[in-house]
Amino acid sequence: MKIRVAKRVLDGNDQQARRNIDRLAELKLAAVNVLASPGAGKTCLIAALLKRFPPGLSVGVIEGDVAGRIDTDKILALGFPATQINTGGGCHLDATMIAKAVDSLGVKGPGCLFIENIGNLICPAQFDLGEGLRVVVASVPEGDDKPLKYPGVFASADAVVLNKIDLLGHVEFKTDSFVAGVRTLSPDAPIFNVSCRTGQGLDAVMEWLLNRPSLRFQ
Amino acid sequence: MKIRVAKRVLDGNDQQARRNIDRLAELKLAAVNVLASPGAGKTCLIAALLKRFPPGLSVGVIEGDVAGRIDTDKILALGFPATQINTGGGCHLDATMIAKAVDSLGVKGPGCLFIENIGNLICPAQFDLGEGLRVVVASVPEGDDKPLKYPGVFASADAVVLNKIDLLGHVEFKTDSFVAGVRTLSPDAPIFNVSCRTGQGLDAVMEWLLNRPSLRFQ
Repeated sequence: MKIRVAKRVLDGNDQQARRNIDRLAELKLAAVNVLASPGAGKTCLIAALLKRFPPGLSVGVIEGDVAGRIDTDKILALGFPATQINTGGGCHLDATMIAKAVDSLGVKGPGCLFIENIGNLICPAQFDLGEGLRVVVASVPEGDDKPLKYPGVFASADAVVLNKIDLLGHVEFKTDSFVAGVRTLSPDAPIFNVSCRTGQGLDAVMEWLLNRPSLRFQ
Repeated sequence: MKIRVAKRVLDGNDQQARRNIDRLAELKLAAVNVLASPGAGKTCLIAALLKRFPPGLSVGVIEGDVAGRIDTDKILALGFPATQINTGGGCHLDATMIAKAVDSLGVKGPGCLFIENIGNLICPAQFDLGEGLRVVVASVPEGDDKPLKYPGVFASADAVVLNKIDLLGHVEFKTDSFVAGVRTLSPDAPIFNVSCRTGQGLDAVMEWLLNRPSLRFQ
Protein backbone atom coordinates (compact mmCIF):
# COMPACT_ATOMS: atom_id res chain seq x y z
CA MET A 1 0.00 0.00 0.00
CA LYS A 2 2.79 2.37 0.99
CA ILE A 3 4.63 1.59 -2.23
CA ARG A 4 1.54 2.15 -4.41
CA VAL A 5 1.02 5.61 -2.95
CA ALA A 6 4.69 6.54 -3.33
CA LYS A 7 4.55 5.44 -6.97
CA ARG A 8 1.51 7.65 -7.63
CA VAL A 9 3.22 10.67 -6.04
CA LEU A 10 6.38 10.12 -8.11
CA ASP A 11 4.36 9.80 -11.32
CA GLY A 12 2.67 13.10 -10.54
CA ASN A 13 6.05 14.69 -9.94
CA ASP A 14 7.41 13.39 -13.23
CA GLN A 15 4.44 14.81 -15.10
CA GLN A 16 4.98 18.23 -13.55
CA ALA A 17 8.73 17.98 -14.25
CA ARG A 18 7.91 17.54 -17.95
CA ARG A 19 5.72 20.65 -17.82
CA ASN A 20 8.61 22.51 -16.11
CA ILE A 21 10.94 21.55 -18.96
CA ASP A 22 8.51 23.13 -21.45
CA ARG A 23 8.00 26.26 -19.33
CA LEU A 24 11.75 26.76 -18.80
CA ALA A 25 12.37 26.35 -22.55
CA GLU A 26 9.68 28.98 -23.21
CA LEU A 27 11.48 31.32 -20.80
CA LYS A 28 14.88 30.37 -22.32
CA LEU A 29 16.13 29.44 -18.86
CA ALA A 30 18.60 26.59 -18.36
CA ALA A 31 17.98 25.11 -14.90
CA VAL A 32 20.77 23.70 -12.73
CA ASN A 33 19.69 21.60 -9.74
CA VAL A 34 22.35 21.79 -7.02
CA LEU A 35 22.34 18.93 -4.47
CA ALA A 36 24.53 18.43 -1.40
CA SER A 37 24.72 17.70 2.32
CA PRO A 38 23.94 20.53 4.72
CA GLY A 39 26.87 22.94 4.78
CA ALA A 40 28.79 21.55 1.79
CA GLY A 41 28.79 24.99 0.16
CA LYS A 42 25.86 25.07 -2.27
CA THR A 43 25.05 28.75 -1.74
CA CYS A 44 28.70 29.75 -1.87
CA LEU A 45 29.16 27.88 -5.17
CA ILE A 46 26.02 29.40 -6.71
CA ALA A 47 27.07 32.90 -5.61
CA ALA A 48 30.54 32.42 -7.12
CA LEU A 49 29.05 31.25 -10.44
CA LEU A 50 26.49 34.09 -10.57
CA LYS A 51 29.34 36.60 -10.33
CA ARG A 52 31.10 34.91 -13.26
CA PHE A 53 28.15 34.98 -15.67
CA PRO A 54 28.84 36.89 -18.88
CA PRO A 55 26.81 40.06 -19.59
CA GLY A 56 23.70 39.49 -21.68
CA LEU A 57 22.60 36.38 -19.80
CA SER A 58 19.96 36.53 -17.08
CA VAL A 59 20.42 34.65 -13.82
CA GLY A 60 18.13 33.76 -10.95
CA VAL A 61 18.09 31.48 -7.90
CA ILE A 62 15.44 29.36 -6.23
CA GLU A 63 16.50 28.60 -2.66
CA GLY A 64 15.09 25.51 -0.96
CA ASP A 65 15.20 25.22 2.82
CA VAL A 66 13.25 23.47 5.52
CA ALA A 67 12.96 26.84 7.29
CA GLY A 68 14.22 30.40 7.06
CA ARG A 69 15.46 32.55 4.18
CA ILE A 70 19.13 33.02 5.11
CA ASP A 71 20.45 31.99 1.68
CA THR A 72 17.86 33.95 -0.31
CA ASP A 73 18.88 37.08 1.60
CA LYS A 74 22.54 36.34 0.80
CA ILE A 75 21.81 36.11 -2.96
CA LEU A 76 19.59 39.22 -2.93
CA ALA A 77 22.34 41.13 -1.09
CA LEU A 78 24.67 40.31 -3.99
CA GLY A 79 22.18 41.97 -6.35
CA PHE A 80 20.76 38.85 -8.03
CA PRO A 81 17.09 37.76 -8.16
CA ALA A 82 16.17 35.00 -5.73
CA THR A 83 13.06 33.43 -4.26
CA GLN A 84 12.62 31.14 -1.26
CA ILE A 85 10.84 27.81 -0.95
CA ASN A 86 10.29 26.61 2.62
CA THR A 87 9.25 22.98 2.89
CA GLY A 88 8.30 22.99 6.58
CA GLY A 89 9.53 19.54 7.52
CA GLY A 90 9.90 18.38 3.90
CA CYS A 91 13.20 16.78 2.91
CA HIS A 92 13.33 17.61 -0.83
CA LEU A 93 12.06 20.00 -3.48
CA ASP A 94 9.50 18.71 -5.97
CA ALA A 95 8.47 19.80 -9.45
CA THR A 96 5.29 21.58 -8.30
CA MET A 97 7.24 23.76 -5.87
CA ILE A 98 9.59 24.71 -8.72
CA ALA A 99 6.71 25.59 -11.08
CA LYS A 100 5.34 28.06 -8.53
CA ALA A 101 8.79 29.47 -7.70
CA VAL A 102 9.61 30.06 -11.39
CA ASP A 103 6.46 32.19 -11.68
CA SER A 104 7.20 34.02 -8.46
CA LEU A 105 10.82 34.71 -9.44
CA GLY A 106 9.78 36.29 -12.76
CA VAL A 107 13.20 35.93 -14.43
CA LYS A 108 13.25 35.55 -18.22
CA GLY A 109 16.15 34.27 -20.32
CA PRO A 110 18.21 33.71 -22.19
CA GLY A 111 19.97 32.75 -19.00
CA CYS A 112 20.37 30.34 -16.15
CA LEU A 113 18.24 29.38 -13.17
CA PHE A 114 20.03 27.82 -10.19
CA ILE A 115 17.92 25.66 -7.89
CA GLU A 116 19.51 25.09 -4.48
CA ASN A 117 17.88 21.94 -3.21
CA ILE A 118 17.36 21.00 0.46
CA GLY A 119 20.61 19.98 2.19
CA ASN A 120 20.20 16.21 2.00
CA LEU A 121 22.14 13.58 0.05
CA ILE A 122 19.25 11.14 -0.24
CA CYS A 123 15.66 12.26 -0.94
CA PRO A 124 16.28 15.16 -3.40
CA ALA A 125 18.02 12.75 -5.80
CA GLN A 126 14.72 10.93 -6.33
CA PHE A 127 12.75 13.95 -7.56
CA ASP A 128 13.11 15.28 -11.10
CA LEU A 129 12.49 19.02 -11.10
CA GLY A 130 12.71 19.40 -14.88
CA GLU A 131 16.27 20.66 -14.60
CA GLY A 132 18.74 20.62 -17.49
CA LEU A 133 21.70 19.69 -15.33
CA ARG A 134 22.28 18.21 -11.91
CA VAL A 135 25.39 19.25 -9.96
CA VAL A 136 26.31 17.42 -6.75
CA VAL A 137 28.52 19.30 -4.30
CA ALA A 138 30.61 17.37 -1.77
CA SER A 139 33.10 18.91 0.62
CA VAL A 140 36.46 17.76 1.95
CA PRO A 141 35.58 17.74 5.69
CA GLU A 142 32.65 15.37 5.02
CA GLY A 143 35.16 12.64 4.19
CA ASP A 144 36.15 10.71 1.08
CA ASP A 145 33.64 7.87 1.63
CA LYS A 146 30.48 9.83 0.80
CA PRO A 147 30.01 8.53 -2.77
CA LEU A 148 29.88 4.90 -1.57
CA LYS A 149 27.57 5.77 1.33
CA TYR A 150 25.14 7.87 -0.75
CA PRO A 151 25.32 6.23 -4.18
CA GLY A 152 22.00 7.45 -5.57
CA VAL A 153 22.82 11.12 -5.64
CA PHE A 154 26.31 10.65 -7.07
CA ALA A 155 24.99 8.27 -9.75
CA SER A 156 22.56 10.98 -10.88
CA ALA A 157 25.17 13.77 -11.14
CA ASP A 158 26.06 15.49 -14.41
CA ALA A 159 29.04 16.98 -12.56
CA VAL A 160 30.53 16.65 -9.08
CA VAL A 161 32.08 19.66 -7.35
CA LEU A 162 34.45 18.84 -4.49
CA ASN A 163 34.46 21.99 -2.36
CA LYS A 164 36.66 23.19 0.53
CA ILE A 165 39.92 21.88 -0.91
CA ASP A 166 41.61 24.61 1.16
CA LEU A 167 40.99 22.25 4.11
CA LEU A 168 43.02 19.39 2.62
CA GLY A 169 45.85 18.83 5.06
CA HIS A 170 43.67 19.87 8.01
CA VAL A 171 41.39 16.81 7.82
CA GLU A 172 41.74 13.17 6.78
CA PHE A 173 40.71 12.98 3.15
CA LYS A 174 42.10 10.85 0.32
CA THR A 175 41.22 12.53 -2.95
CA ASP A 176 41.98 9.30 -4.84
CA SER A 177 39.41 7.38 -2.78
CA PHE A 178 36.81 10.07 -3.36
CA VAL A 179 37.40 10.08 -7.12
CA ALA A 180 37.35 6.26 -7.25
CA GLY A 181 34.02 6.29 -5.38
CA VAL A 182 32.47 8.77 -7.81
CA ARG A 183 33.83 6.81 -10.78
CA THR A 184 32.09 3.57 -9.74
CA LEU A 185 28.76 5.43 -9.83
CA SER A 186 29.18 8.06 -12.50
CA PRO A 187 32.01 7.11 -14.88
CA ASP A 188 31.79 10.20 -17.07
CA ALA A 189 30.81 13.10 -14.83
CA PRO A 190 33.57 15.69 -14.51
CA ILE A 191 34.88 16.22 -10.98
CA PHE A 192 35.93 19.77 -10.14
CA ASN A 193 38.17 20.46 -7.15
CA VAL A 194 37.34 23.92 -5.84
CA SER A 195 37.45 26.21 -2.86
CA CYS A 196 34.51 28.60 -2.88
CA ARG A 197 36.29 30.40 -0.06
CA THR A 198 39.48 31.18 -2.01
CA GLY A 199 38.02 31.02 -5.53
CA GLN A 200 40.34 28.20 -6.60
CA GLY A 201 38.97 26.05 -9.41
CA LEU A 202 35.74 28.00 -9.97
CA ASP A 203 36.60 29.32 -13.44
CA ALA A 204 36.77 25.71 -14.68
CA VAL A 205 33.26 25.01 -13.37
CA MET A 206 31.97 28.15 -15.09
CA GLU A 207 33.63 27.22 -18.37
CA TRP A 208 32.13 23.74 -18.23
CA LEU A 209 28.69 25.15 -17.43
CA LEU A 210 28.70 27.65 -20.30
CA ASN A 211 29.67 24.92 -22.75
CA ARG A 212 26.92 22.45 -21.90
CA PRO A 213 24.74 21.68 -24.90
CA SER A 214 21.67 21.77 -22.63
CA LEU A 215 22.60 25.31 -21.60
CA ARG A 216 22.84 26.81 -25.08
CA PHE A 217 20.39 29.50 -24.03
CA GLN A 218 18.68 29.47 -27.41
CA MET B 1 -4.86 10.94 1.17
CA LYS B 2 -1.11 11.36 1.37
CA ILE B 3 -1.40 12.70 4.91
CA ARG B 4 -3.66 9.86 6.07
CA VAL B 5 -1.19 7.23 4.87
CA ALA B 6 1.78 9.05 6.46
CA LYS B 7 -0.14 9.19 9.73
CA ARG B 8 -0.81 5.45 9.64
CA VAL B 9 2.87 4.69 8.94
CA LEU B 10 3.99 6.91 11.82
CA ASP B 11 1.48 5.30 14.19
CA GLY B 12 2.89 1.89 13.29
CA ASN B 13 6.41 3.15 13.94
CA ASP B 14 5.41 4.59 17.31
CA GLN B 15 3.85 1.28 18.34
CA GLN B 16 7.05 -0.58 17.44
CA ALA B 17 9.12 2.10 19.23
CA ARG B 18 7.16 1.37 22.40
CA ARG B 19 7.89 -2.35 22.02
CA ASN B 20 11.58 -1.47 21.51
CA ILE B 21 11.58 0.45 24.80
CA ASP B 22 10.32 -2.66 26.62
CA ARG B 23 12.77 -4.97 24.85
CA LEU B 24 15.75 -2.68 25.55
CA ALA B 25 14.73 -2.43 29.21
CA GLU B 26 14.56 -6.23 29.37
CA LEU B 27 18.10 -6.38 27.93
CA LYS B 28 19.22 -3.56 30.28
CA LEU B 29 20.45 -1.59 27.29
CA ALA B 30 20.27 2.20 27.21
CA ALA B 31 19.90 3.28 23.57
CA VAL B 32 21.44 6.48 22.22
CA ASN B 33 20.19 7.62 18.80
CA VAL B 34 22.92 9.68 17.07
CA LEU B 35 21.74 12.04 14.30
CA ALA B 36 23.75 14.30 12.01
CA SER B 37 24.52 15.42 8.47
CA PRO B 38 26.71 13.17 6.32
CA GLY B 39 30.30 13.47 7.48
CA ALA B 40 29.68 15.39 10.70
CA GLY B 41 31.55 12.74 12.68
CA LYS B 42 28.93 10.36 14.08
CA THR B 43 31.10 7.24 13.79
CA CYS B 44 34.15 9.01 15.17
CA LEU B 45 32.15 10.24 18.18
CA ILE B 46 30.65 6.81 18.86
CA ALA B 47 34.10 5.17 18.60
CA ALA B 48 35.57 7.70 21.03
CA LEU B 49 32.78 7.07 23.55
CA LEU B 50 33.02 3.27 23.24
CA LYS B 51 36.69 3.49 24.22
CA ARG B 52 35.78 5.53 27.31
CA PHE B 53 33.14 3.12 28.68
CA PRO B 54 33.93 1.83 32.16
CA PRO B 55 34.56 -1.91 32.62
CA GLY B 56 31.48 -3.90 33.55
CA LEU B 57 29.21 -2.21 31.05
CA SER B 58 28.39 -3.78 27.67
CA VAL B 59 28.41 -1.71 24.51
CA GLY B 60 27.19 -2.27 20.97
CA VAL B 61 26.52 -0.30 17.82
CA ILE B 62 23.83 -0.39 15.15
CA GLU B 63 25.09 1.35 12.02
CA GLY B 64 22.56 2.79 9.60
CA ASP B 65 23.59 3.57 6.04
CA VAL B 66 21.94 3.83 2.65
CA ALA B 67 24.61 1.45 1.34
CA GLY B 68 27.83 -0.26 2.38
CA ARG B 69 29.23 -1.31 5.75
CA ILE B 70 32.24 1.01 6.05
CA ASP B 71 31.36 2.21 9.57
CA THR B 72 30.39 -1.24 10.89
CA ASP B 73 33.80 -2.52 9.80
CA LYS B 74 35.46 0.42 11.60
CA ILE B 75 33.67 -0.40 14.87
CA LEU B 76 34.35 -4.14 14.57
CA ALA B 77 38.05 -3.39 13.91
CA LEU B 78 38.12 -1.57 17.26
CA GLY B 79 36.88 -4.76 18.94
CA PHE B 80 33.30 -3.73 19.68
CA PRO B 81 30.11 -5.50 18.54
CA ALA B 82 28.34 -3.85 15.62
CA THR B 83 25.67 -4.68 13.06
CA GLN B 84 24.72 -2.96 9.82
CA ILE B 85 21.35 -1.76 8.56
CA ASN B 86 21.25 -0.83 4.87
CA THR B 87 18.15 1.09 3.85
CA GLY B 88 18.66 0.88 0.07
CA GLY B 89 17.41 4.33 -0.86
CA GLY B 90 15.72 4.95 2.50
CA CYS B 91 16.50 8.23 4.26
CA HIS B 92 16.01 7.25 7.93
CA LEU B 93 16.00 4.34 10.35
CA ASP B 94 12.67 3.16 11.75
CA ALA B 95 11.68 1.23 14.84
CA THR B 96 11.15 -2.07 13.01
CA MET B 97 14.69 -1.99 11.60
CA ILE B 98 16.00 -1.41 15.12
CA ALA B 99 14.00 -4.32 16.58
CA LYS B 100 15.58 -6.70 14.06
CA ALA B 101 19.07 -5.23 14.51
CA VAL B 102 18.89 -5.56 18.33
CA ASP B 103 18.18 -9.29 17.90
CA SER B 104 20.92 -9.67 15.31
CA LEU B 105 23.48 -7.80 17.44
CA GLY B 106 22.85 -10.06 20.45
CA VAL B 107 24.35 -7.68 23.03
CA LYS B 108 22.95 -7.86 26.58
CA GLY B 109 23.31 -5.23 29.27
CA PRO B 110 23.75 -3.64 31.59
CA GLY B 111 25.22 -1.33 29.02
CA CYS B 112 24.70 1.02 26.15
CA LEU B 113 23.55 0.63 22.56
CA PHE B 114 24.56 3.36 20.11
CA ILE B 115 22.42 3.74 17.00
CA GLU B 116 24.10 5.69 14.22
CA ASN B 117 21.25 6.98 12.12
CA ILE B 118 21.38 7.75 8.38
CA GLY B 119 23.34 10.96 7.62
CA ASN B 120 20.42 13.34 7.19
CA LEU B 121 19.30 16.30 9.30
CA ILE B 122 15.62 16.02 8.37
CA CYS B 123 13.83 12.67 8.07
CA PRO B 124 15.48 10.71 10.94
CA ALA B 125 14.22 13.31 13.44
CA GLN B 126 10.63 12.27 12.70
CA PHE B 127 11.04 8.60 13.64
CA ASP B 128 11.11 7.45 17.26
CA LEU B 129 13.28 4.34 17.55
CA GLY B 130 12.52 3.73 21.21
CA GLU B 131 15.81 5.33 22.20
CA GLY B 132 16.51 6.67 25.69
CA LEU B 133 18.49 9.68 24.44
CA ARG B 134 18.89 11.55 21.20
CA VAL B 135 22.25 13.19 20.46
CA VAL B 136 22.59 15.56 17.48
CA VAL B 137 26.09 16.05 16.09
CA ALA B 138 26.91 19.19 14.11
CA SER B 139 30.35 20.11 12.81
CA VAL B 140 32.18 23.40 12.43
CA PRO B 141 32.72 23.29 8.64
CA GLU B 142 28.96 22.88 8.07
CA GLY B 143 28.48 26.46 9.28
CA ASP B 144 26.85 28.12 12.26
CA ASP B 145 23.41 28.48 10.61
CA LYS B 146 22.44 24.82 10.68
CA PRO B 147 20.12 24.96 13.73
CA LEU B 148 17.92 27.62 12.10
CA LYS B 149 17.88 25.79 8.76
CA TYR B 150 17.10 22.35 10.24
CA PRO B 151 15.04 23.21 13.32
CA GLY B 152 13.25 19.86 13.76
CA VAL B 153 16.31 17.80 14.57
CA PHE B 154 17.83 20.36 16.93
CA ALA B 155 14.50 20.81 18.73
CA SER B 156 14.42 17.06 19.41
CA ALA B 157 17.99 16.83 20.81
CA ASP B 158 18.76 15.79 24.38
CA ALA B 159 22.30 17.01 23.74
CA VAL B 160 24.11 18.72 20.88
CA VAL B 161 27.74 17.85 20.11
CA LEU B 162 29.62 20.42 18.04
CA ASN B 163 32.44 18.45 16.43
CA LYS B 164 35.60 19.48 14.53
CA ILE B 165 36.40 22.48 16.72
CA ASP B 166 40.03 21.95 15.64
CA LEU B 167 38.91 23.59 12.36
CA LEU B 168 37.81 26.84 14.04
CA GLY B 169 40.02 29.50 12.53
CA HIS B 170 40.22 27.63 9.21
CA VAL B 171 36.55 28.22 8.31
CA GLU B 172 33.97 30.93 8.92
CA PHE B 173 32.03 29.91 12.01
CA LYS B 174 30.61 32.02 14.82
CA THR B 175 30.18 29.80 17.86
CA ASP B 176 27.87 32.41 19.47
CA SER B 177 25.51 32.26 16.49
CA PHE B 178 25.46 28.47 16.58
CA VAL B 179 24.71 28.39 20.30
CA ALA B 180 22.01 31.08 19.93
CA GLY B 181 20.40 29.00 17.14
CA VAL B 182 20.35 25.86 19.26
CA ARG B 183 18.96 27.80 22.24
CA THR B 184 15.92 29.06 20.30
CA LEU B 185 15.00 25.42 19.60
CA SER B 186 16.27 23.50 22.57
CA PRO B 187 16.71 25.81 25.57
CA ASP B 188 18.03 23.17 27.96
CA ALA B 189 20.10 20.70 25.91
CA PRO B 190 23.77 20.80 26.81
CA ILE B 191 26.09 21.77 23.95
CA PHE B 192 29.49 20.06 23.93
CA ASN B 193 32.36 21.49 21.89
CA VAL B 194 34.60 18.62 20.83
CA SER B 195 37.15 17.44 18.34
CA CYS B 196 36.86 13.71 17.76
CA ARG B 197 40.15 14.01 15.87
CA THR B 198 42.18 15.40 18.81
CA GLY B 199 40.02 14.06 21.66
CA GLN B 200 39.29 17.53 23.02
CA GLY B 201 36.01 17.75 24.97
CA LEU B 202 35.08 14.08 24.75
CA ASP B 203 35.47 13.29 28.46
CA ALA B 204 32.73 15.83 29.20
CA VAL B 205 30.33 14.07 26.81
CA MET B 206 31.12 10.72 28.44
CA GLU B 207 30.56 12.10 31.94
CA TRP B 208 27.22 13.58 30.88
CA LEU B 209 26.19 10.31 29.25
CA LEU B 210 27.03 8.17 32.27
CA ASN B 211 25.05 10.46 34.54
CA ARG B 212 21.78 10.45 32.58
CA PRO B 213 18.91 9.11 34.66
CA SER B 214 17.66 7.23 31.60
CA LEU B 215 21.02 5.47 31.33
CA ARG B 216 21.22 4.13 34.87
CA PHE B 217 21.80 0.66 33.49
CA GLN B 218 19.67 -0.97 36.18
